[in-house]
Parts: sequence; structure tokens; C-alpha cells
Amino acid sequence: MHTAIKYLTEPSLDNPVMVCGLPGIGSVAWLAVNHLQKELKAELFAEVYSPAFSPKVWLTEDGIVKLMKGEFYFWKSADGGPDLLLFSANEQPYSPEGQYELADVVLDLAQRFEVKQVITMGGMATDNFTDHPKVYVGGTDTDLVKEVEAFGAVKLAGGAITGTNGLIFGLAKPRSISAICLLAETPGYLSLDASAAKSALEMSSKLLRIELDYSALEKQARENSDAVHKARDLSRNNLPRDRDLSYVS
Amino acid sequence: MHTAIKYLTEPSLDNPVMVCGLPGIGSVAWLAVNHLQKELKAELFAEVYSPAFSPKVWLTEDGIVKLMKGEFYFWKSADGGPDLLLFSANEQPYSPEGQYELADVVLDLAQRFEVKQVITMGGMATDNFTDHPKVYVGGTDTDLVKEVEAFGAVKLAGGAITGTNGLIFGLAKPRSISAICLLAETPGYLSLDASAAKSALEMSSKLLRIELDYSALEKQARENSDAVHKARDLSRNNLPRDRDLSYVS
Amino acid sequence: MHTAIKYLTEPSLDNPVMVCGLPGIGSVAWLAVNHLQKELKAELFAEVYSPAFSPKVWLTEDGIVKLMKGEFYFWKSADGGPDLLLFSANEQPYSPEGQYELADVVLDLAQRFEVKQVITMGGMATDNFTDHPKVYVGGTDTDLVKEVEAFGAVKLAGGAITGTNGLIFGLAKPRSISAICLLAETPGYLSLDASAAKSALEMSSKLLRIELDYSALEKQARENSDAVHKARDLSRNNLPRDRDLSYVS
Amino acid sequence: MHTAIKYLTEPSLDNPVMVCGLPGIGSVAWLAVNHLQKELKAELFAEVYSPAFSPKVWLTEDGIVKLMKGEFYFWKSADGGPDLLLFSANEQPYSPEGQYELADVVLDLAQRFEVKQVITMGGMATDNFTDHPKVYVGGTDTDLVKEVEAFGAVKLAGGAITGTNGLIFGLAKPRSISAICLLAETPGYLSLDASAAKSALEMSSKLLRIELDYSALEKQARENSDAVHKARDLSRNNLPRDRDLSYVS
Repeated sequence: MHTAIKYLTEPSLDNPVMVCGLPGIGSVAWLAVNHLQKELKAELFAEVYSPAFSPKVWLTEDGIVKLMKGEFYFWKSADGGPDLLLFSANEQPYSPEGQYELADVVLDLAQRFEVKQVITMGGMATDNFTDHPKVYVGGTDTDLVKEVEAFGAVKLAGGAITGTNGLIFGLAKPRSISAICLLAETPGYLSLDASAAKSALEMSSKLLRIELDYSALEKQARENSDAVHKARDLSRNNLPRDRDLSYVS
Repeated sequence: MHTAIKYLTEPSLDNPVMVCGLPGIGSVAWLAVNHLQKELKAELFAEVYSPAFSPKVWLTEDGIVKLMKGEFYFWKSADGGPDLLLFSANEQPYSPEGQYELADVVLDLAQRFEVKQVITMGGMATDNFTDHPKVYVGGTDTDLVKEVEAFGAVKLAGGAITGTNGLIFGLAKPRSISAICLLAETPGYLSLDASAAKSALEMSSKLLRIELDYSALEKQARENSDAVHKARDLSRNNLPRDRDLSYVS
Repeated sequence: MHTAIKYLTEPSLDNPVMVCGLPGIGSVAWLAVNHLQKELKAELFAEVYSPAFSPKVWLTEDGIVKLMKGEFYFWKSADGGPDLLLFSANEQPYSPEGQYELADVVLDLAQRFEVKQVITMGGMATDNFTDHPKVYVGGTDTDLVKEVEAFGAVKLAGGAITGTNGLIFGLAKPRSISAICLLAETPGYLSLDASAAKSALEMSSKLLRIELDYSALEKQARENSDAVHKARDLSRNNLPRDRDLSYVS
Repeated sequence: MHTAIKYLTEPSLDNPVMVCGLPGIGSVAWLAVNHLQKELKAELFAEVYSPAFSPKVWLTEDGIVKLMKGEFYFWKSADGGPDLLLFSANEQPYSPEGQYELADVVLDLAQRFEVKQVITMGGMATDNFTDHPKVYVGGTDTDLVKEVEAFGAVKLAGGAITGTNGLIFGLAKPRSISAICLLAETPGYLSLDASAAKSALEMSSKLLRIELDYSALEKQARENSDAVHKARDLSRNNLPRDRDLSYVS
């Protein structure tokens, strides 16, 4: 069994931009792509199964089985902006080789649809909690980085990005695909940082020139913020935890 | 060396139902398929060898070597009910990738024989010991789940199923094979829970409309029950253990 | 890079018997095949390299590099007895999958030369040290086991054989190659048990109807025995260790 | 995704010598090849990407993404000496199988360019710090070892070389490529031992009959030496550490 894409339909897209976000620290990228998919009502058109995902299945509340998988959605712009391809998955692959394998298959699909740019997102762990997380940017070339800095992002001057979000970003380069990685500040202790997800997504939407309603993310962010501020008045041992989402690796 | 099926004979079957059970918690599924095979006198027709099984061989009491392997049996119905394919193995594969690989090869065989349904079984760990274990059900679609609920099963509303029994169930879905997973309640401490195996198998036999003699499983279940009830009168440190079957992973 | 055989020459053999022994407990099989190769002056004709061996190289006393590898030797009988193929390696593969892979490649070569029988050897850990280790036998069929029992071996009635020596033995069966496994008693604490190696090799030579000079193994066995008997007069903490051979896994 | 070479240009070379050095103990080989590449202004012509590298990417100070990769450089001799191929990488592969895979791919390239010799380097851990590290030599044949001994190297009489530098050296042999491994003495506690790198590179340059300026390595070596001598006057707990290079595995 190999990592393989199963097409449900084959959309016709005009040099789309691909936006990727797998679960990772604070689930920043996963939340952002998930929100984008829901707000745009982007349509599922392909799934990717892999022996590199963990060997288990999930059940919905209706008792229906779901596999570990990646999902590709598309959205066609009505106003002349770029069409979009979205990619996410319910977890990152199990092994290092599996992470490379998935990133490679995602970029195969990107090339097939002649994407003009790949945007990956993620969280950057910082020590303190903030209601207005900064967004850091890296890119495949200097002009691209400067373009995003002009929108208010901070240049990632050094450091490493681990995991599949980083590999999709990096492996775009030898394929000559323009790529950007946006990392939003997140404290390590939030399992679902809606505030960081909103920051990363706002930066993406500026680049994509799309308008989004962020109210769902904002509601979740306020709840996080209230919980964290309340926690600061209590002892460290009583620090509240986000609701646990076991499908987020 | 790859995971590969070796055919001993090639039976002619009429849209059979496939019943799968690999060793797992309480050996529920393994016991159930083993009992089914013996009661129906189902015939061995194919074996699967894999480098994903553990790197060892076994010897029978006669000194004859046996490999780690999976085995496929068939049974032809005499009364117009569905023909059956049975699958089991003496252990689950060693690695996550190996579990996906085996599940995939099993479903290749299922498609080759145009199975109309796959039933996998397993144990669901619960805190307390009962003589009448409940059976939970998940499926590839809602109608299927409702059909099994009508026979007295409880819907699996959420949660995860790990291992090869779960993967065979889940990977059936993208192949458009109808599949059901039946999990019988089992306390964690029994290595061979005949009572849970009987519950799972009774539910399967209702779906398959076959009559089975359960006396062998019932005898083993009574012995388990006596041992557990006796243990409750003793100190926790003296809790008796089931006889150890080292070929059950 | 794959596990692959490199042929140096291609001998012409008449339905040879293959004798295999990789390093394992007490290095029994490795010592036995090594002794057999030297006594018969069997000729190296093929090597097997594999990414499943550990990622290192060795240097001889002359500073010449040697890879981790397996080696095949042949010996042509002058008196009408069976020709021989010998196989050994300086370690067992690193991973479970690698052990299956190597066993599979060895049996590919066996089939290419139409071997009529495979004999693998090994050590069986026992609690006490003896100057006359028993030899246990398992086989691919009952007649074979009985034939070796007639030479004084004890039937392996149950139990497991782990590692590559066991896999070569077991994987012969689905290829319909007659195979025997001979395990000589060895205490766990000897890294090179020449006495057990001699016992296993004597049993093999009866089956092969060849005469061997065992003086080199006997000398080593006497040294082991003297050391062990001396150790018994001392405290357990002072138990002497065999000289350490780091190339024995 | 497989370990694969991506060619940027295809140089025309005349039976070049290949010099390899991946990061390892004291970063000896990596520093040596890096210095050689800079001094000769050798030109990058090919890159190797592999799923066996760790699953992460790096960012430059300009925010530009860089993958884990190997790099091949070439240099054409102007004075009739041998042309050179240089190989290094920013880390050694993650898994044993990956190390074999990379070594194999590097030697594929070596054969494509018909290299007449491969020189790999490395560090050999010793107990004490010295300003004049000795260089040890191993080879694929006795004449080669003697030739390097004549230049002042010490024969590696036994022992093992682990990792990719050793595998490139060893796997050259079954391909009938002449190969040398040069190991310079290094204490275990230096992460960048410029002094050992200089010793190894001086030995290589004698073999290659090239003149090099070592001032950059010498400066770094003096700093190391000063730091170590200063540390000896302090308590063991205050032992200074080299600046940490996180890209050195």
C-alpha cells in the first residue's frame, strides 16, 4: 500500500493558489484551513490515504467509520482573484519518511493543477500569551518574503520548521513552485489556538485578496483568552486545559 | 519480500460475506473466527506471508515448523444463505505500515471474490466483568448501522478502533465495500475472553442467518467466569491469570 | 539500495544441500558453518549486501575495509555424497523486515541451485552448562524429524525460533523445500560456544554423510569448559567472560 | 519519494577523484570538505534530496527556505592534476537504511563520472586533546594503504567506522572503485574540530597534489585550542562548549 490520491471529481482551475495546513502546535494551520474551507464553502474533490498515518479509524456520532486521511478542496473565485486549492489532514504522518512522502504527493497534485503559489501555515511557540499574535514569514525567494513583510509579517531570520507543513513549503523549491510559510505566535499550552489561526489566516487572505468572516474563530479565541486570563489568577497547578481533541496530533 | 497471498486452491463463491478477526484485546475476534471456522468446517484455501509479522517461527508438538501468517477459509452455504470467507492470523503485523499493508492485501482478496460485505470483530475494553457482554456496532453507512442495532447491538457513537481489525473495516469504505465492525465488551485482564467472543459471534450469525453450536466457547466462558468470581473473594494480588497463549499478540 | 546477491563465480552443483548459520545465541550456528567451510575448504562464490545490516564497515589488521555482508560458499563432493552450499554472515540484519528480506534472498539462491534440502542451525538457551550439549530438531515434515531423531536428536515439541536462522528454515516450507533446524543446548553466558557448535555440526555431518576433523572446535570447547569449571569455584560476581567478539550480534 | 539526485549542470570531468565528508564526530569531514570547496571555489552542480533526512527545513537570515540535502561540487584542475568531485550534506540520514541508500546514490554518481578514487574523511575519538592530530588510514587495498602511510598516516589496524562516511568508503569496494578513508584524531567534546579537519585535509591534499591556504581553519583551531587550554585551568563543571551548530547531526 502506498500513499495515493483518490479523485472524487476533477475540477478545472485557473493557476490556483494552494493553501495547506496540517495539525501541529496549537493546531494553528489546521484551524485556519478548516475555517477557510467552511467560510468559502470549498468543495472536497480528492482524498489521500497513506500507510504512514496511524493505524486506526474513527467513528462519527452516527457510528460511521472514518479513516485517517488528507483532503483536498477547491474554490473558484467569482471576482477575478485566484482560484484556491486547500489541503489538510486529520493528523501528520507517523514516521519521518511518511512526512516526506505525503509532502511529495501533495506537491504532485499542486503541479498537476499548475498552482502558481503554495502557502503553508503553522504555529511558532512563544513564551507568553497574546490576544494579537504576530505572524512570521519565510519564502522560496527574497521578493516573496518582502512582499509579505509589506503586509505586516515579520521575517523568519533563521531557525527550523519541523514536520509536514515545513516539508511541503521546502520541497516546493526544487520543483520551482513559489512558496510561503506563515507562522503565527502561539503559547505551547493551547491545543486549539483560534487566535493564532485567525492571525495566520488574515495574513493569507491579504495575499489572496479575499474577504472572510472570522466570527467563529473570534468566538473560540475569546473563550481561550477568558480561560487563560482566569487561569492567571489561580495557581499554576490549576491551569485549565482546552477541550481535548484527540484527532489532533 | 512483500506481503503476498499464496493460493492453495481457488474456490468458486457466490458474492460471499467476509468475516475477519485478528488477535487483539481479549483475543475476542480471533476466538470468534476460530470458532466459526471449526463449527462450519470451513476450508483453508489461501495463506498470506508478510515481512511485517514478527521475525520468528513456531513448532508444533510434532516438531513441524509453522510461520507467522494469515489464513483464508471458505464455506459454501447449503441453504441459500451467503457463502463465507473467513480471515484470521496468528498475530497482528509488527509495524503500523505493516498493519495497513495486511489490511490492504486482505481487501484485494475480498474484491477478487466480489464480497458483498465485510464483518470485522474485536473487543472493547470496559471496567467491569459481565457474563453477558454487550456488542457495539459501527459501519460504512447509516442503514447498515441501523440494521445491526435492530438485532440488539449498541451504536459506536464516536471513539477510535486501533489495529488491523479496524483498518480492514475502514479501508473497505474507499473501495465501496459495505463493512461492519462488531466490538464486544471485555475487561482488560482476560487474554482469551470466550464470553465476549460468543457475544460478537452471536451478533454475526444473526446477520449471516446461520445457526451455530457455542458449547466450546460456553465451556471456556464458564471457566473464565468461575475464575473471576473466585478471584473477587481473594486479594487483588492473587488475581488468577488466564492460561498464557504466547501466539496472541 | 536493495538486498542483493553479487556472484563472483557460478558453480555447477548437483542438487546440493544448503547449510546455513548466522550469528545468534552462543554464536553456535556461525561457529559451525565457519568450521565446516574451513575444514572442507569450501569456496566463496557469492556475497549478499543489504541496507538491513548495521550501517558500518570493519577494517582488517592490514587496514583493508570489509562490509557487513553474507557469504555463500560451495563444496563439491568427491565420493558421491551431496554437494554443499554454505551460507553465513557477520551479523543478522538490523530490523525484523530486514531479517525476512535476507531469508527470502537466501532461499531465492537455494531455488536457483535446486537445493534438495536446507539445514539451519542455532543455539537453544538452557540453564546449565554441559560438556555434551543435546541437539534438538524441527523440520518441514514428520518423516524428516523422525529421520534426525534416529541419529540421536530430540524433537522440538513446541516453542519458537526467532531471527534469521529460524526464518530461512520456516520460509523454505511454502517454497516446498525440505528443511531441518538443529538447535544445540547452550548456556546463555558463552558468546562463542564451541561445544554446542560441535554438537550441531556432528548432527549435520551424520545427515550429510561427511567426516570432519573437530580438533579446532574441541580445543576452544576445552578452554570454555576449563574457564567455566574454574568459575564455579569462585564467587558469582567473578564469573569470567568469553573474549568479546564485537562482530557477533 | 526516493533518494534522488537533481542535476543543475552536467560538468565534463577527466577521471576525477571524489572527496566526501558528511557531518560526524567533531564535524571533521564536513569542515574539511567545506574548506576545500571554498578554497578551490568548486562549483555546485547537483543536489540530493532524501526522505531519509530529518523531516524539517531551515531558514536563512533572509527568510529563505533551505532543505536538508546533499551537495555535489566539481573543480577542474588547471595544472594537470586530477579534477575533483566534492560531496557533503548538512546532516547524515536519519535511519540505518537511509545511510546505505545515500551512500549508494553517491557512488552511482561516482561511477557515472568514472571517478578513479574516492576519499572519505572522518574523526576518530581519542582521550586527549592535541594541537597536532594524527591521521589514520584505511583502504580498499594494501598498496593504497601503504601509499598513504608513506605520507605519514597511521594504518587503521582493526576497528569499525560507523555512519555514511564509512559506508561510502566500504560500498566502493564491491563496485571496484579504489577508496581511502582518512580519520583524524579528535577529542569527543569539540563540536567543530578545525584542527582535526586541517590534519585530514592536509593528508588529502598530499594525495591530490594540490596546495591549499589553511588560514581560516587555523584561526578556528587556535580559538578551540585557547578555549580548551583555558578550560583546563577551571573546574570540570565550567568546561566551555563550542558554539552550537544545530545543523550538525
